[in-house]
Amino acid sequence: MKKKYLLAPGPTPVPESALLAMAAPIIHHRTPQFSEIFKEAAELLKYVFQTKQDVLILAASGTGAMEGSITNLFSPGDEVIIVNGGKFGERWGKISEAYGLKAHWLTVEWGKAVNPADVKKILDSNPSIKAVMVQASETSTTAAHPVKELAALTKEKNCLLIVDGITAVGVFDLPMDDWGIDVLVSGSQKAFMLPPGLAFAALSEKAWKFQETAKCPRFYFDFKKERKNLKDNTTAYTPAVTLIIGLLEALKMIKAETLQGVFARHDRLARAARAASKALNLKLLAPESPSNATTGVFVPDGVDGGKLVKYLRDEVGVTMAGGQDHLKGKILRIAHLGYVDTFDMIIAIAAIEMALSKFGHKVELGKGVAAAQQILLEGYK
Amino acid sequence: MKKKYLLAPGPTPVPESALLAMAAPIIHHRTPQFSEIFKEAAELLKYVFQTKQDVLILAASGTGAMEGSITNLFSPGDEVIIVNGGKFGERWGKISEAYGLKAHWLTVEWGKAVNPADVKKILDSNPSIKAVMVQASETSTTAAHPVKELAALTKEKNCLLIVDGITAVGVFDLPMDDWGIDVLVSGSQKAFMLPPGLAFAALSEKAWKFQETAKCPRFYFDFKKERKNLKDNTTAYTPAVTLIIGLLEALKMIKAETLQGVFARHDRLARAARAASKALNLKLLAPESPSNATTGVFVPDGVDGGKLVKYLRDEVGVTMAGGQDHLKGKILRIAHLGYVDTFDMIIAIAAIEMALSKFGHKVELGKGVAAAQQILLEGYK
Repeated sequence: MKKKYLLAPGPTPVPESALLAMAAPIIHHRTPQFSEIFKEAAELLKYVFQTKQDVLILAASGTGAMEGSITNLFSPGDEVIIVNGGKFGERWGKISEAYGLKAHWLTVEWGKAVNPADVKKILDSNPSIKAVMVQASETSTTAAHPVKELAALTKEKNCLLIVDGITAVGVFDLPMDDWGIDVLVSGSQKAFMLPPGLAFAALSEKAWKFQETAKCPRFYFDFKKERKNLKDNTTAYTPAVTLIIGLLEALKMIKAETLQGVFARHDRLARAARAASKALNLKLLAPESPSNATTGVFVPDGVDGGKLVKYLRDEVGVTMAGGQDHLKGKILRIAHLGYVDTFDMIIAIAAIEMALSKFGHKVELGKGVAAAQQILLEGYK
Repeated sequence: MKKKYLLAPGPTPVPESALLAMAAPIIHHRTPQFSEIFKEAAELLKYVFQTKQDVLILAASGTGAMEGSITNLFSPGDEVIIVNGGKFGERWGKISEAYGLKAHWLTVEWGKAVNPADVKKILDSNPSIKAVMVQASETSTTAAHPVKELAALTKEKNCLLIVDGITAVGVFDLPMDDWGIDVLVSGSQKAFMLPPGLAFAALSEKAWKFQETAKCPRFYFDFKKERKNLKDNTTAYTPAVTLIIGLLEALKMIKAETLQGVFARHDRLARAARAASKALNLKLLAPESPSNATTGVFVPDGVDGGKLVKYLRDEVGVTMAGGQDHLKGKILRIAHLGYVDTFDMIIAIAAIEMALSKFGHKVELGKGVAAAQQILLEGYK
């Protein structure tokens, strides 16, 4: 018998109540019964997105919502700024180029946040730029980009701020309407605590104006059509019925905890992971601008990160993520988003300590755990 | 207490074993554990598609696979024939036009099958036509189109036969490789007995050749990238993990029953539904070329079809489908695909008899049931 724990940055653990709701006999999607569920879920999504706008619900991975955010708002030849600070930043650029947009690539060192002044410079010298695309939380590098500052740059311009909030919405504060985010996308398998298969997208009034003249071709991801259907509590094409049923369960949990409570919990878990990393002399990948979704650390010299991740998963029973591209084998990513609480962090840190010790790395067992505990105590009255 | 029954053409009922498999704690998608499941499911999909080709697995509704079948194979300006015999035939045309293809619309009366001679005429006078797009089973009209005959027309030409098999694959015989179908798409919520959220697409060698020069933009639905990932037992973007876990369960059931067994069951259920309709003097919507997926009947004069469907669902507890567009309120569609057997048909027919009787229509109770039973007896040794 070996108990298994999932602490990767998506899919994240699914609460039992959502699993059970999704395991009930399936219902038809064109029924008042499903419409009620859909309506309530769509309403609660607005709360989590902190917006008055509709939040579209798509049957797709998050990448589908990213694609739709481009094809529904722009035309071939339109110029956009791509904040390329990791795998997902790069994806904004690849999608843009696939649809004939002209991408100004702003490369950011992995683990760093973009400097808003660099964005401003490009914006100022290219008045025809129509969008800045960025990640609120760049999952591949565990860095958070300064969304609020970027929104201040685009707000008064004929330029949209398009934010991939896939590992950010429901993790930390990202008030779409207040800050002036024009497009905010997310996915089910992150803070929404569900299996993958649903993508979400919300657009500001300014973004909907862009939609009116956008000439990129699209069909499955047709936001205007989805918005029209949403008003009737349905989707343009067959919705992922069971995932939406699970979504309502998960959203009710978030509502009950309150967004502020959810943010505080993620902040506490993230600080605990960082404090533990420091106590264990594990260097942070994104020390200056760490995301509260996932903490990335460099594995100690002499330790093969790929083997460490595999050992943690197969022998210790704890699934975390390694690194991608040039960080492959060099980092460990401890996720703390979604249905994750105090003792998940204790498990994560204890597991890392024990695995590193098994790998012959000199580690004082319990030292990281103690540092995490110190922070996690804040969670108790 | 009122028991509920789902007999609509998708979503179809999900077997308990698949529901339970999907309710297990979620696993990460980049693990050997998930790869094993994915690999086995992908292999069994080939069996159901009757092809040696890879069957791509997409996180989307079936429409997503339809879109990909166009964007991955053609370029703006390419000419195609759209067999428009219902809502879904129309959809082929709408997607084609959204991506700048030139559609030759071949309109077929709703409830009728396309005449291959009409397709041949257009093909002969337009040698540059690159594809014929059709439904194997047009769900909106319950008619089946003659796919084998159409394949014979395109086989020797530089022209693809693209078949929407969303309510056909796993329902009736549609041997992709044998007949020379170039693209075959389907979706999870039909004969695959799963919730909606997965789409499938298989391409012939000839179709993969078209892919090499196709210039329509695409990103999320990138078949070449998906094929590459499939070889590594994964998908390009985060797969719908739980649905794929359920898929393996459902495919194992199909394999155990055998495809021939599955086809024979659907054929028996469909003939039972048609015999019952005849016994009850309910006129078939597609008498000449009925699909074994769903039986459409006109509701008797004086009966409001919309109210009948609602009464069946809310009072009797049996969900069937009504009509769309100009058939709205005029027809009833009894689905018999997927996890459906003898007594589901008995329930459907008995429910219709009782509802019609409540609606003041003169009906001999049990007469349709008896006609169905006569056929359903064939299912027993």
